[in-house]
Amino acid sequence: MNVRFEVLIQLKPGLLDPQGKAVEGSLPALGWTNVSGVRVGRHVELTIEADSEEAARAQVEEMAARLLANPVIEEFQVLRAGQVVR
Amino acid sequence: MNVRFEVLIQLKPGLLDPQGKAVEGSLPALGWTNVSGVRVGRHVELTIEADSEEAARAQVEEMAARLLANPVIEEFQVLRAGQVVR
Repeated sequence: MNVRFEVLIQLKPGLLDPQGKAVEGSLPALGWTNVSGVRVGRHVELTIEADSEEAARAQVEEMAARLLANPVIEEFQVLRAGQVVR
Repeated sequence: MNVRFEVLIQLKPGLLDPQGKAVEGSLPALGWTNVSGVRVGRHVELTIEADSEEAARAQVEEMAARLLANPVIEEFQVLRAGQVVR
């Protein structure tokens, strides 16, 4: 079976987020002064061919920890694609 | 009221995704040969101070279209933080 997943990767809370700060710094010039706490991370979508959803999810978790994210400074969430409420 | 949003930004379907291809290319060396369709995008979290959730959401949509994403090549989704099923 093919299972599609989304992986959301963010810097751990408390770590300085230069990209987020850059976005925040550019907002007032565009007229938006009511925005705070901007954090920029990554969003990865992929399809796994596996025997079961459990096996596929376990593989995505391992891929996220070893390749997609840096667990020292980042945290990640693995979601089935479509679990996000549109 | 403070409303926290998540913005998911991805290249439009059909556009070549070099980051996704790079990830796919590195997977076989790690022993994973059952992965396809890797797409790498961005995930932005931010807090809006607004009178209503509707006003806050409208502002985030405008921010996404003008600043966070490039609508020519990217598509985005605006979600209330917490709408994602963990």
